[in-house]
Amino acid sequence: MALSRLNTFTTKSSLFRQLPQNAKCLSNLILGEPSGPSVKTPIPGPKSKEMISELNTIQFANTVIYFTDYNKSIGNYIVDVDGNVLLDVYTQISSLPLGYNHPDLLKVLQDPDNQRTFINRPSLGLFPGQGWPQKLTSSLLSVAPKGHSQVTTMACGSCSNENAFKAAFMWYRNKQRGGAPITEEENTSCMMNVAPGSTPFTIMSFKGGFHGRTIGVLSTTHSKAIHKLDIPALDWPIASFPRYKYPLEEFAEENKAEDRKCLAEVEEEFERFNKSGRYVAGVVIEPVQAEGGDNHASPEFFQELQRITKKNGAALIIDEVQTGGGATGKYWCHEHFHLPEPADFVTFSKKMLTGGYYSLPEFRPQQGYRIFNTWMGEPSKVLLLDKVIEVIKRDNLLSIVQASGKKLMDGLMDMSKRYPQHVKNVRGIGTFCAFDSSSAEKRDEIVAKLKEKGIQSGGCGDLSLRIRPALVFQPYHADIFLEKFEKVLKKIKTV
Amino acid sequence: MALSRLNTFTTKSSLFRQLPQNAKCLSNLILGEPSGPSVKTPIPGPKSKEMISELNTIQFANTVIYFTDYNKSIGNYIVDVDGNVLLDVYTQISSLPLGYNHPDLLKVLQDPDNQRTFINRPSLGLFPGQGWPQKLTSSLLSVAPKGHSQVTTMACGSCSNENAFKAAFMWYRNKQRGGAPITEEENTSCMMNVAPGSTPFTIMSFKGGFHGRTIGVLSTTHSKAIHKLDIPALDWPIASFPRYKYPLEEFAEENKAEDRKCLAEVEEEFERFNKSGRYVAGVVIEPVQAEGGDNHASPEFFQELQRITKKNGAALIIDEVQTGGGATGKYWCHEHFHLPEPADFVTFSKKMLTGGYYSLPEFRPQQGYRIFNTWMGEPSKVLLLDKVIEVIKRDNLLSIVQASGKKLMDGLMDMSKRYPQHVKNVRGIGTFCAFDSSSAEKRDEIVAKLKEKGIQSGGCGDLSLRIRPALVFQPYHADIFLEKFEKVLKKIKTV
Repeated sequence: MALSRLNTFTTKSSLFRQLPQNAKCLSNLILGEPSGPSVKTPIPGPKSKEMISELNTIQFANTVIYFTDYNKSIGNYIVDVDGNVLLDVYTQISSLPLGYNHPDLLKVLQDPDNQRTFINRPSLGLFPGQGWPQKLTSSLLSVAPKGHSQVTTMACGSCSNENAFKAAFMWYRNKQRGGAPITEEENTSCMMNVAPGSTPFTIMSFKGGFHGRTIGVLSTTHSKAIHKLDIPALDWPIASFPRYKYPLEEFAEENKAEDRKCLAEVEEEFERFNKSGRYVAGVVIEPVQAEGGDNHASPEFFQELQRITKKNGAALIIDEVQTGGGATGKYWCHEHFHLPEPADFVTFSKKMLTGGYYSLPEFRPQQGYRIFNTWMGEPSKVLLLDKVIEVIKRDNLLSIVQASGKKLMDGLMDMSKRYPQHVKNVRGIGTFCAFDSSSAEKRDEIVAKLKEKGIQSGGCGDLSLRIRPALVFQPYHADIFLEKFEKVLKKIKTV
Repeated sequence: MALSRLNTFTTKSSLFRQLPQNAKCLSNLILGEPSGPSVKTPIPGPKSKEMISELNTIQFANTVIYFTDYNKSIGNYIVDVDGNVLLDVYTQISSLPLGYNHPDLLKVLQDPDNQRTFINRPSLGLFPGQGWPQKLTSSLLSVAPKGHSQVTTMACGSCSNENAFKAAFMWYRNKQRGGAPITEEENTSCMMNVAPGSTPFTIMSFKGGFHGRTIGVLSTTHSKAIHKLDIPALDWPIASFPRYKYPLEEFAEENKAEDRKCLAEVEEEFERFNKSGRYVAGVVIEPVQAEGGDNHASPEFFQELQRITKKNGAALIIDEVQTGGGATGKYWCHEHFHLPEPADFVTFSKKMLTGGYYSLPEFRPQQGYRIFNTWMGEPSKVLLLDKVIEVIKRDNLLSIVQASGKKLMDGLMDMSKRYPQHVKNVRGIGTFCAFDSSSAEKRDEIVAKLKEKGIQSGGCGDLSLRIRPALVFQPYHADIFLEKFEKVLKKIKTV
């Protein structure tokens, strides 16, 4: 297995060889954006503090960073209730495709023809509205990963993965049945949660992975203990995800060996679980482990994983909830991996506004009401997504992501040379970038000091800082970020 | 345990003793509603059929009943793309509080101040918007079940229950710890899904119950095999839910005995699971088992269940996803039960537009990010809910539900006497009504023939038909339903 394409994760990547000619790198994509951040008060400011303590009487509110003025926030800038204006490179945990108050999205809401879509939420599995197939086609299917023609909508990332798992279990059992009909014993036993109707099937996941927080997908989440503590878990197979040494060029051999080690674990887990009758029906993996610390793996790792998964008769479920929707410079991060065949499932949410998954035709349920719930997603989200995709295409936003990503990566690499004690292991695709600090405390200090300088960023993993701007983040925004970042780095003490 | 209040489920109920003086029973609540249904084509009609086959190229579409024209649907009437107008007593699986295109909801969308709420979806756990605590207070908290001051929003019913379970597990483990800090072993073990960090805790559920379809809550769902088949399940305790004989007055002793039998099972399951160390942290139950067949239980059953649950140190989780929001004539169905103490959790979704749960203060998480996800519900849903609650209060809709419910129940009781072979075991609270047919086939025939007459209803359980109109369903709508229903009954063959 060659590791030749591993350098797609470096600034020398082939991705950036041809800088887009059509990127509107220096023009404003959103009118009314401020020229830069401005911070007036400590953050959270006095008004935010008051509101936090008010909210805290209703629910646990200690995670709130500040209260936001969503009327004033615009484009890449989030404005808090104390009047502080921050350049947002975190964007609601990477869930805003076009930043705040994008004029085209506002127009969708202002159109009387659209307003009814927001107040008549259908049960999509029973009573879809006129034009629904066309809306799915012009939005989700127009950006489907290569080879995909089937899409199922859901409300959020967790239930997208939950339902992909369920579809994989049904498909696997159906293969096992070999055409035999469902037995009465299966029907009665599943009602009491026992075999043969309830299967002993499993989903393989990876250390450091994050696939959501409902109990099924939480069993495949292994990013932070606080997400999982005290909750019962399904004892399903868990393999190691590669942990590379950076810069990649210097550690090519070590990283290749790391790939091999992890893939061997995958094979071992398949053998161990399949032998014991706890068949592995699917393997779920993120193209970049985001919540777990922006851990990247090589295209060859993913290619080989697909081969092993297929060999073992399981489904490959690629979780693009955080990576999907354009931030890597392609609609889907796994498109960078040039997999020999389409992934069996590609799940999405966040920047796609609606949750859901693409799946190959063989994963269609065989009966009604098996992949089903009251709402099955929501047409108003797909209506907004339709406009988002139109804007991405019209404004060449993927090219802008590539250009801004190069700027960010060049800048971060430069910082890692000049401030090696604070900026390590720089990695990224498009604007989906991160680096490690020397400790969790230092990372948190950088996030806090960036906020003082008017930059909203976020942590991930044990000691990483992740950058997750919207798709309207242009190279000059990257300049602003880097300028503030350097000011922060100068103030961080080494010890 | 007395069963004196069991007759709240009959037409002689004390609920209806005082008919509301202020119910606008004969006025139109929504301008522009047609005077009655009109059916022009077989359903699904030719246009619907074409669209179904189009959708079927994109996803499994065999559950679709017809395509709907949501611009033309109004109030209690759903209009399909072939121009058929049906009186809707199913309302998108009981999820529309005010029917279609309610003018007050449309005004919410037309207000420019509100439009931004629909395009700036925040990560509510980090960056809530200005006015969020007030919005929670004026909407969700203004109708909170007695004794509840805490509310957490979620996206849908399944994740509301999943998170209530999680909060119950954390609370239970915290009690077990008795103030001791979380150990390093707990933190590391939970990352690999094993003890002690991952607990062996369980949630008790009831045969016939429905609590959602993600893998955790699906383990507590026992309504239909097709929902559960092939999916791995957690081996958690399951007790019997009362199955009464009707009319209740005639079978008071038998039904009391049924309560005792089921409660004894609850006690046995507590003992069996707690003894084996698989502690029961919570008991989840619907006030009326809806999906499972509209199975009712007496107030005394619920009062005693609360006592047993408390005695065993577990949390009582009342799932009001389908029963909540007003259809029973109160905001929350369990308010009819006069429980000695507030329920520990009350979960909701559907008619509440947002998912979520109320919980007592002792169930607040002790640390951040434990009950958390990217979105944590959505302000735009709470904005709409705020208006829905305002309209419910302004138009006295709960009184109308009570009056329409009485009309429905009286009519159904009458039918059960005149068509006893087709209409059995009539039961209901408010407009939340149902009856049994003689078989699944006969039930399906009634639903199909009702549709031909312009009534959209729905089945539940093995042989029940459920009536789930919106809160704007008035007594004269009930008359229309009953008139069409009788026409159908006259045509159904007995054998």
